[in-house]
Amino acid sequence: MENKVKRELPDDLMNKMGLKPFETTEIGHPEVKRVAPTVRVTIGQNKVVASLDEVIKNNLKDGMTISFHHHFRSGDYIFNMVMDKIIAMGYKDLTLAPSSLTGVMNDKVIEAIKKGVITNITSSGMRGSLGDFVSHGGLKKPVIFRSHGNRARSIEEGEIKIDVAFLGVPVSDPAGNANGQDGDAVFGSLGYALMDAQYANKVVLLTDNIVDYPNTPASIKQDQVDYVVKVDKVGDPDKIGSGATRFTKDPKDLKIAQMVNQVIVNSPYYKQGFSFQTGSGGAALAVTRYLRQSMIKDGITASFALGGITKPTTDLLEEGLVRKVMDVQDFDKGAAQSMANNKNQQEIDASWYADPHNKGAVVNNLDVSILSALQIDTDFNVNVMTGSDGVIRGAVGGHQDAAAGAKMTIITAPLVRGRNATVVPSVETIVTPGSSIDVLVTERGIAINPARKDLIDAFKNVPGLNILDIHDLQKMAEKQVGVPKPLEYTDRTVALVEYRDGTIIDAIKEVKD
Amino acid sequence: MENKVKRELPDDLMNKMGLKPFETTEIGHPEVKRVAPTVRVTIGQNKVVASLDEVIKNNLKDGMTISFHHHFRSGDYIFNMVMDKIIAMGYKDLTLAPSSLTGVMNDKVIEAIKKGVITNITSSGMRGSLGDFVSHGGLKKPVIFRSHGNRARSIEEGEIKIDVAFLGVPVSDPAGNANGQDGDAVFGSLGYALMDAQYANKVVLLTDNIVDYPNTPASIKQDQVDYVVKVDKVGDPDKIGSGATRFTKDPKDLKIAQMVNQVIVNSPYYKQGFSFQTGSGGAALAVTRYLRQSMIKDGITASFALGGITKPTTDLLEEGLVRKVMDVQDFDKGAAQSMANNKNQQEIDASWYADPHNKGAVVNNLDVSILSALQIDTDFNVNVMTGSDGVIRGAVGGHQDAAAGAKMTIITAPLVRGRNATVVPSVETIVTPGSSIDVLVTERGIAINPARKDLIDAFKNVPGLNILDIHDLQKMAEKQVGVPKPLEYTDRTVALVEYRDGTIIDAIKEVKD
Repeated sequence: MENKVKRELPDDLMNKMGLKPFETTEIGHPEVKRVAPTVRVTIGQNKVVASLDEVIKNNLKDGMTISFHHHFRSGDYIFNMVMDKIIAMGYKDLTLAPSSLTGVMNDKVIEAIKKGVITNITSSGMRGSLGDFVSHGGLKKPVIFRSHGNRARSIEEGEIKIDVAFLGVPVSDPAGNANGQDGDAVFGSLGYALMDAQYANKVVLLTDNIVDYPNTPASIKQDQVDYVVKVDKVGDPDKIGSGATRFTKDPKDLKIAQMVNQVIVNSPYYKQGFSFQTGSGGAALAVTRYLRQSMIKDGITASFALGGITKPTTDLLEEGLVRKVMDVQDFDKGAAQSMANNKNQQEIDASWYADPHNKGAVVNNLDVSILSALQIDTDFNVNVMTGSDGVIRGAVGGHQDAAAGAKMTIITAPLVRGRNATVVPSVETIVTPGSSIDVLVTERGIAINPARKDLIDAFKNVPGLNILDIHDLQKMAEKQVGVPKPLEYTDRTVALVEYRDGTIIDAIKEVKD
Repeated sequence: MENKVKRELPDDLMNKMGLKPFETTEIGHPEVKRVAPTVRVTIGQNKVVASLDEVIKNNLKDGMTISFHHHFRSGDYIFNMVMDKIIAMGYKDLTLAPSSLTGVMNDKVIEAIKKGVITNITSSGMRGSLGDFVSHGGLKKPVIFRSHGNRARSIEEGEIKIDVAFLGVPVSDPAGNANGQDGDAVFGSLGYALMDAQYANKVVLLTDNIVDYPNTPASIKQDQVDYVVKVDKVGDPDKIGSGATRFTKDPKDLKIAQMVNQVIVNSPYYKQGFSFQTGSGGAALAVTRYLRQSMIKDGITASFALGGITKPTTDLLEEGLVRKVMDVQDFDKGAAQSMANNKNQQEIDASWYADPHNKGAVVNNLDVSILSALQIDTDFNVNVMTGSDGVIRGAVGGHQDAAAGAKMTIITAPLVRGRNATVVPSVETIVTPGSSIDVLVTERGIAINPARKDLIDAFKNVPGLNILDIHDLQKMAEKQVGVPKPLEYTDRTVALVEYRDGTIIDAIKEVKD
């Protein structure tokens, strides 16, 4: 079958798994029935246990679904610690349903797959050796990639049913009141993990820092927690923010950032109380810097900044240029530490952030979102999942969610990367459909989605904004790097990419080497 | 049938309603399945509506269950405003399931019952004309009285299924991010209402103060809210704390308070990091004052104070004598205003506070609770629901919950009130079973539950603590006021009192006049 963005989906798999093809970014107003966990009453029991083995033995069964969060990012010690035990204890056929998978988890996931411990995965993304392994057919059943908002939705509606959640925290009291704001390995917002804490049947906290009862603020609450396991160290605080927030000196990135700022300040949305999500990465951070200068010059303040948050954004909060920061995740130590000190930095869970099936997520209140792309095609479809070699090396993250919610979504991308075009006739994998993308900014010029005639009008006389047809940008890229040989895939589907409503927007095939 | 505290329960009603008799205060470790609401996705819709009529018309049907909170206490304008509309629109056969009913709601509830609009009620309590009306058979079906913790449990497990919750707040943004901490009619914690916001199928906020998006802290979150209705005035701020927190000058109250303090400081629980719940009322406030003096003298600080909170308690927080305040409800303006200013005053929902069927409520971490009584009998059973005339004039509140959770529960009561004994051979209505009561303090002496030999030992040599057998206290009371004529009731059951696990601890009969 073919879906509405013209991707051929594997009929057998779609039918067997009861999946539906993507149709539209319009969610409409469906009535959805939520699910709820089974709770074992723990009155009078001591939750603090020294033996992780025992917790696993008493709560985990073959075939169950386990979850983790990725707030420790590259500094995570919890995932490998828990998976080592689970592998050693000989479990089989588990479904792994973390909020995402970071590079430090790769070896362990591959080991668990090879030993039959993990046979199903759903995640926001994967990179490096694990992406390579899956793209080469290492996992029998297809990985399901979901956006952060879609994961929240899937948990609420029972498509992901977490049996045991293993959640690392830098601080907890003996009853399970925990947050990400105190301790050695502070990561700030627990946004993604709050879904697991609320919906998993069993919630196991792991911490190196058990403090006196009651610990507040309690992002995770004692009435959600079954066990508190004391471990030596939950994570490496220096690696929580590694890489994400270096300020770029790349002239191409700086040029793009300047143009993005021009797009923002000349848009109809740039006015008192506007709102934005910038994300991390060099260009995004540079945008924040230019935007700050414009806001000061123009006397404009923002009502809120959203998303994965970085220190440049919490600096805007301190300066009073942004009134509130709505924070589902922190990308660096500075932003993480800021949460404990600034009450206008509000922790939000993944549902509040981006769930398409609730009564209103913050993404729906966004004016401007600035997102990245591995590839973007002439229909404005964006790929943030597979490289130009067809191998999985990315994550949906909040991409689909912010793009759908924001009034203006800007994609920033260099025209080419190395010998590969970024602007292409057709992306390898569609993650975010072009209908929710408004502007592409490259170092050579910008392209505006033809559906947004209002933006074409708004930008046509702005000095320095070279407005091009996206087909022209694609041809410029092609001229620079040539037409690549088409990639070769086998017939086997190694992953399915869901749109935020649970329909399938694309299938990823096994690469042929 | 008779239950374990020897109360005869109406077989026909129990069987028809599928209810079970009370057996034990021990909750054990059952596995319970929770329920979840049906959510209508509201993407792109404006939630702010001017017409309450329209919201009611589009969402309410005959036979549904509606809810309200009582955080505005005597200053509430919302209940009557909404019920006026519902009555005028001719609805029938609704179930009223508020967190509690305060006196200002009485006339409207009676009117709604008389017109067939309300045919079922569950509440924490009722007083005044409404209690009188129900006790005289004004409502056909029995009222179900539930503790705050039990209401949370009943909502989580589907015994109370709220179709539409009407929740007044002093501030909200247009998307429904709301709290009780800003605006004109500040009441502080939204603790009880947070259950309704999370579990009701439709959540209607009513506010006189719509502020710019996003409003934080958001106790109620936009993803839980269907409508934001703008009204002229949500409540009278001066009546939110009326009465509850006047400091007593009654010498009897002061004497009881001093003895309660003696009991606390001579108990094994009075040590660094102990915890307590005092509640409101003259004696309770005086206890807080005496306890403060002792804590300063002894260099002892408390880890937390719990409950319905008053200004004397938040003053202890400011002084550093209490490390955290766990706050489900505020009894006065001072405590309400403190929440916005002191981050150690943690808002908690009713489940976190007192739910017997979760993974651990704060009441289970209590050392000492100080509770009141309308009557207490020689088995230490406590009545906080009916007067000595058998008429309903009280509320379960958190009584059963704090008594069950705390390591030491102290009941404070004058031996007699007017011409009526407080210590009696058998209470009119059992609300809290004697097995969870440890000490009774009256102005004439204290009685210790015989099961607590450790406390008898602890207190026997304390100067000023006159330890008596509770039977002797009962006889002293009887000597003072005589033996009352037994009350006369009809055979008809007008209310059932649930224990916190949902079993029936007592039935209240129609009074004969």
